[in-house]
Amino acid sequence: MSNKIRLGIPKGSLQDATIALFKRAGWNIYADGRSYFPSIDDKEIECMLIRAQEMARYVEHGVLDAGLTGIDWVVESGLNVTSITSLVYAKQSRRKVRWVLAVPEGSGYEKAEDLEGKTIATELVGVTKNYFEKKGVNVKVEFSWGATEVKPPMLADAIVEVTETGSSLKANRLTIIDTVMESETHLIASQSAAADPWKRQKIESIALMLRAAIDAQGQVGLMLNVQRQHLQTIIEVLPALNSPTISELSNPAWVAVNTILEESCVRDVIPKLKAAGATGIVEYPLNKVVL
Amino acid sequence: MSNKIRLGIPKGSLQDATIALFKRAGWNIYADGRSYFPSIDDKEIECMLIRAQEMARYVEHGVLDAGLTGIDWVVESGLNVTSITSLVYAKQSRRKVRWVLAVPEGSGYEKAEDLEGKTIATELVGVTKNYFEKKGVNVKVEFSWGATEVKPPMLADAIVEVTETGSSLKANRLTIIDTVMESETHLIASQSAAADPWKRQKIESIALMLRAAIDAQGQVGLMLNVQRQHLQTIIEVLPALNSPTISELSNPAWVAVNTILEESCVRDVIPKLKAAGATGIVEYPLNKVVL
Amino acid sequence: MSNKIRLGIPKGSLQDATIALFKRAGWNIYADGRSYFPSIDDKEIECMLIRAQEMARYVEHGVLDAGLTGIDWVVESGLNVTSITSLVYAKQSRRKVRWVLAVPEGSGYEKAEDLEGKTIATELVGVTKNYFEKKGVNVKVEFSWGATEVKPPMLADAIVEVTETGSSLKANRLTIIDTVMESETHLIASQSAAADPWKRQKIESIALMLRAAIDAQGQVGLMLNVQRQHLQTIIEVLPALNSPTISELSNPAWVAVNTILEESCVRDVIPKLKAAGATGIVEYPLNKVVL
Amino acid sequence: MSNKIRLGIPKGSLQDATIALFKRAGWNIYADGRSYFPSIDDKEIECMLIRAQEMARYVEHGVLDAGLTGIDWVVESGLNVTSITSLVYAKQSRRKVRWVLAVPEGSGYEKAEDLEGKTIATELVGVTKNYFEKKGVNVKVEFSWGATEVKPPMLADAIVEVTETGSSLKANRLTIIDTVMESETHLIASQSAAADPWKRQKIESIALMLRAAIDAQGQVGLMLNVQRQHLQTIIEVLPALNSPTISELSNPAWVAVNTILEESCVRDVIPKLKAAGATGIVEYPLNKVVL
Amino acid sequence: MSNKIRLGIPKGSLQDATIALFKRAGWNIYADGRSYFPSIDDKEIECMLIRAQEMARYVEHGVLDAGLTGIDWVVESGLNVTSITSLVYAKQSRRKVRWVLAVPEGSGYEKAEDLEGKTIATELVGVTKNYFEKKGVNVKVEFSWGATEVKPPMLADAIVEVTETGSSLKANRLTIIDTVMESETHLIASQSAAADPWKRQKIESIALMLRAAIDAQGQVGLMLNVQRQHLQTIIEVLPALNSPTISELSNPAWVAVNTILEESCVRDVIPKLKAAGATGIVEYPLNKVVL
Amino acid sequence: MSNKIRLGIPKGSLQDATIALFKRAGWNIYADGRSYFPSIDDKEIECMLIRAQEMARYVEHGVLDAGLTGIDWVVESGLNVTSITSLVYAKQSRRKVRWVLAVPEGSGYEKAEDLEGKTIATELVGVTKNYFEKKGVNVKVEFSWGATEVKPPMLADAIVEVTETGSSLKANRLTIIDTVMESETHLIASQSAAADPWKRQKIESIALMLRAAIDAQGQVGLMLNVQRQHLQTIIEVLPALNSPTISELSNPAWVAVNTILEESCVRDVIPKLKAAGATGIVEYPLNKVVL
Repeated sequence: MSNKIRLGIPKGSLQDATIALFKRAGWNIYADGRSYFPSIDDKEIECMLIRAQEMARYVEHGVLDAGLTGIDWVVESGLNVTSITSLVYAKQSRRKVRWVLAVPEGSGYEKAEDLEGKTIATELVGVTKNYFEKKGVNVKVEFSWGATEVKPPMLADAIVEVTETGSSLKANRLTIIDTVMESETHLIASQSAAADPWKRQKIESIALMLRAAIDAQGQVGLMLNVQRQHLQTIIEVLPALNSPTISELSNPAWVAVNTILEESCVRDVIPKLKAAGATGIVEYPLNKVVL
Repeated sequence: MSNKIRLGIPKGSLQDATIALFKRAGWNIYADGRSYFPSIDDKEIECMLIRAQEMARYVEHGVLDAGLTGIDWVVESGLNVTSITSLVYAKQSRRKVRWVLAVPEGSGYEKAEDLEGKTIATELVGVTKNYFEKKGVNVKVEFSWGATEVKPPMLADAIVEVTETGSSLKANRLTIIDTVMESETHLIASQSAAADPWKRQKIESIALMLRAAIDAQGQVGLMLNVQRQHLQTIIEVLPALNSPTISELSNPAWVAVNTILEESCVRDVIPKLKAAGATGIVEYPLNKVVL
Repeated sequence: MSNKIRLGIPKGSLQDATIALFKRAGWNIYADGRSYFPSIDDKEIECMLIRAQEMARYVEHGVLDAGLTGIDWVVESGLNVTSITSLVYAKQSRRKVRWVLAVPEGSGYEKAEDLEGKTIATELVGVTKNYFEKKGVNVKVEFSWGATEVKPPMLADAIVEVTETGSSLKANRLTIIDTVMESETHLIASQSAAADPWKRQKIESIALMLRAAIDAQGQVGLMLNVQRQHLQTIIEVLPALNSPTISELSNPAWVAVNTILEESCVRDVIPKLKAAGATGIVEYPLNKVVL
Repeated sequence: MSNKIRLGIPKGSLQDATIALFKRAGWNIYADGRSYFPSIDDKEIECMLIRAQEMARYVEHGVLDAGLTGIDWVVESGLNVTSITSLVYAKQSRRKVRWVLAVPEGSGYEKAEDLEGKTIATELVGVTKNYFEKKGVNVKVEFSWGATEVKPPMLADAIVEVTETGSSLKANRLTIIDTVMESETHLIASQSAAADPWKRQKIESIALMLRAAIDAQGQVGLMLNVQRQHLQTIIEVLPALNSPTISELSNPAWVAVNTILEESCVRDVIPKLKAAGATGIVEYPLNKVVL
Repeated sequence: MSNKIRLGIPKGSLQDATIALFKRAGWNIYADGRSYFPSIDDKEIECMLIRAQEMARYVEHGVLDAGLTGIDWVVESGLNVTSITSLVYAKQSRRKVRWVLAVPEGSGYEKAEDLEGKTIATELVGVTKNYFEKKGVNVKVEFSWGATEVKPPMLADAIVEVTETGSSLKANRLTIIDTVMESETHLIASQSAAADPWKRQKIESIALMLRAAIDAQGQVGLMLNVQRQHLQTIIEVLPALNSPTISELSNPAWVAVNTILEESCVRDVIPKLKAAGATGIVEYPLNKVVL
Repeated sequence: MSNKIRLGIPKGSLQDATIALFKRAGWNIYADGRSYFPSIDDKEIECMLIRAQEMARYVEHGVLDAGLTGIDWVVESGLNVTSITSLVYAKQSRRKVRWVLAVPEGSGYEKAEDLEGKTIATELVGVTKNYFEKKGVNVKVEFSWGATEVKPPMLADAIVEVTETGSSLKANRLTIIDTVMESETHLIASQSAAADPWKRQKIESIALMLRAAIDAQGQVGLMLNVQRQHLQTIIEVLPALNSPTISELSNPAWVAVNTILEESCVRDVIPKLKAAGATGIVEYPLNKVVL
């Protein structure tokens, strides 16, 4: 068993995205919709589907060596696990979420302190209680089984709820008055797995490949040819993030430039490259990037 | 406001079935998928979608006058509300569910007492704790966010889980060793609504119509003609449950028989009726039945 | 050809509902998605799919003998055709639509007269021009190819648009300031078909059956038994619309009552019937009703 | 085992229609898509899914007591089984199919005799060989694994293929020159089951109920009131197929008429009934009919 | 407002393809199905969904700075706008469409002149009138609301209809006798936007990127290694369209060749390259191409 | 006709995968769901959809020049055709299938010889008979129309059935006791087409491109930069399968490495490359590979 890690995959809303991410990173996970032990094409890994809310509990107990879950549920659990890496998504489609304190529009509440004595509905009871305690505000925090955003004002005075864009809150005529915590997906490991060299290295390799796949999503390759005399102008047009590869061609008057850049820059960069004398400009897709 | 009741509709797995039941009972509820306040074509009712788990809480607080929810969640809440009617479903498609104590096949546990000191995962924490306390068995009851049936033996020693047919438990190689509680849907009302004559009558009318629609589902109408001399034989073939309506015909030698019976009996009854001399046997569908 | 009528079925949004209505009325129309000449299981009818907007044109030319279309497009066409029947839908799901004059919220326009010199976008150009001319208001009416409700204020100052519930207008922050015309589906016939006895009778039969199917949709049958002494109370509880059928039973102390009533009344009537001594109350569905 | 019959349900294109037919007849069959032993809510029946082509083989062997299959495959098998009933579908949606001899348009073949020495592709090899042998025509009959209608002229000279409407043949530019056999679904039983009184009665009851459900599909109930003086006219308007039930009403000047008729007649009958003085004409749906 | 352009996206059949094209070109447009103002991830652009038929009208009025629409509707509008670029789709999936004059098969009409005095149905009334006027043919042009191809011969004598492959016309037994106009999608701009340097440059950049994305669709990258002595043969095999990039390798006896070519050529080119001594031949996909 | 080949595409379960493979290889095949003659964008090829079971028959007759089918059905046919290439699928998604001899769990049968005198159900009658004859075992082989795996033990004693993973057999509680034959898809040609130089070359080109597309599926391109001094370490990390391309850069201290490798290795290779000093590591997708 020393050459095998047990890995928790978040069951539910993150499940499909996580399996797709592993696929891009190089692992095929097969979940057949019934079993909670999806198979994976790596003899050194054993997968288990676990709710994000319970991931930290079972990693901490040592039933799992590692798992993916939101850092919000890790903090809520209050348990001691190691974060190997955050899985920061590329900028243009970021998935960072916020737990916010929201109140009914027109309620007059403007800050946490205005809620003294009131009822707060939330799925994140522990974090919410801590938040108000630190501020010295006395509130009643009620666990909400879901549909939290519809509760004010009839069923609660305010809520602490997770949101990406705020549109669901807005649709329910709620105003955000504070951010309680930010969260994103982390790959976490148990203390003992982090201390075992083989497991540590295996988990680090998984982390490297997941990041390589994530980084490739918002990035593309760009190749072009340019006369040596215009090379400097071309280089100045390219984002400074990482230096391009300049190759020698058979025709010594020309060079080839190959570089990686954010897909979202391309629409601004290509017109400038063309104006600067580049020819044969080609954008191509990437599967993985490790700069 | 005295001529209006606030009615909680269970959000989630029961929602569509509940809206369909109200439709058959005579009320059209329109839920557009976003709003938690579905509209209804009755000016005396205001609907709200609420999780079954929270229904008793908000009925008890008086935010709602009445609501539909499982009696399991009412008991779990420990709150004081009035049950107006159980909504007993017709026999052939019964929806009565059981919360059962289940253990891994081959674990050797045969009764609750064998679990002393063990960990029990369940969504129904309060009822489960009571169950073990009454038996004087000391266990650790952990709240499960879902997928409870996959937890033993890795993540829990036993579970208390809801089941209709037991097939999901069996598929996870679990054996049922006891029934913790049986549950079915009830229409519940708050103490104050039950004490208000107008509200009481309105809620009773809803209950009557819901039952009329439920009763109609497993039943059908049967009409036939028979010579007066064979009438007694025919009556003996029909289930004794309720007496058939015998009508006079223009031809005095014949009578018409019209009756209601369980759809599941029809396949046995019709061959016997035919053998007994009935003609023009016709089965027709029913929308509502109040015997 | 004298024993055959050519019937126009509205192509587009009304098509499926129209075919379903004919099915309930007793005719099966098969439209295979490509052909504009759907087949029908009646040798005396030949169908053709035609846009509602063009129906009056081709009925007036005599290419079609009859057709179903909105009276709005008949009026817009300005042509001379005969309306055989309106197809008034049952109350609880009425399909009567209105063409309304709508302006941006907060625009300050409160009546047609405030739009002097402005641009009006609409699909119903002729009717709209007439409306403003009768009021002596000078406006520019522009034909809109669709998405009319999104045009104000950038692309038009006001619109004349069709609406059932007003919700689409509201979602686009438009206020209704007048109703230009109401419309519903009519079965229309050409002058010559209306004058031909055989065709007239055939079209009248179709109209009768379509109405029978429409009427059956909002209505149900209700049967019950009651002791003769309580019959009068029962009759008083039933809506006065049409007199119930009272049948003699073998047991002379009882009678059976069979009646047709609006489905939407049933939830109010059944509790009263039960209170008045009715037993064996059964509601059953209807396919067609001709009172 | 004497009180249980083994029943073969045809797997494949007829499967869903068969299960739906049993449902209408009063039996719920649950096929979960994987198992070939669907469960049924009748302790006296055990179901098995079997290809229609193999049904006669396994009924003859006695592995099954009875089964539903096309009479074509029974004849093709050449085996000795008992037909309990044909399941004649209602006229307006008949499912009777024909195996036809078809040749390419323009091929010049006009009758079976023109195909001397040619190649015939078919799935029904035995029946086809018999057909040509009886005519004394010498042909090569090749088994076709499917897509038979596309084979001429490249892959075969003619085909024997099953067809309902002929449209697929026409689309492949084939002309029908003869009917080799007609076929419809039969309920068949093994010799030994047919000789066992209990099994025979059970299978006959199933047959009765299947026919009752089939007969109900194309038929409807019709109720109306009429003054006694107009009763004769009404009766003459009704199809003579089965005599209507005439009930006595409290008002002795009127009677109620209740009858069953083909749904396809209703559109012609109702206008005439109305003209003849009927009131309160109501058409209602039927589940089962045994006249 | 000077640093922002208003861009019209064609609503309807072209909408999804246009949004997909912008995505490939580097812009994410989010249309949520209700709003007509889809958001775009470029602060310098504001989008609006407009029917292709109305695009020129609103660009000409200056409500929009630019928009994508078929040149057919631009000509039909008769308005004065600037075409920035046609969006010529790659050859193998060309989307160029034709408006054709079509008549019933066997009608005897062979050219426009044969239609003197006849009725022509079309959605493109203005262009059609011009076409016949130029030829001196007097016809009645009727606006068709759709399903134009089904109108001859009953509802019109001939039609002018848009077609890509002619298959819909053929299915309706119509023969094309002339092409009235060809059309393809253009990016158009208003006179004033075309005259504003910042807007002009922004629109030109959009045009460049849209073309880069279109060009990449039918093209692929090809890399291979070859011994320097066989390089000339390899170059001769490659299509002459654009010169390949020849890179120096560590091994001076070999060079690497990288080139762009039409995907449809690859199946012919690779076998020849292999025969000519190329090794490590790799085809890879492209996102954008600017040669 | 000498410059055209007739190519059989397997109809049925392989059809979509085959059309997708041709698309990746450079040919677009359009099958419209009705016609058995799909069009293809290559004037030198004419396609026909044929069942895999019949492919060898029609290739042998010369109706087709070539076709794709499983080698199992070629052997079953016993006919003489030429295999041009097997289409070996990449390792991680291999499609090699096995026809296995399977018996009920617990039946006691352990080898073919134990089945003397028993009944074997299979779709592959000829191959199965040969298999038992060679072993000198006397069995009754019955043709099975499908659902073979459900037949034991009621309908057959053992089966010969095709399987990829064995999971369907296991689900039916069958044990594999021998492999009767392995099979995979082949491109086969008739003797005469193989002897015709033009046809032979055309078929070989198709084979080359199909393999190029198959090979590309499990492989990816990998580019990286490395200091010349670390180049050797990098090369040792890369799989030895094919030598990487080393390019000269403008900066003479660095080289670029470009190579093709199995996608399934990448997750192991990239961490090692990074440890060995590689930078700018990029994985990119491939369409076709000819090494």
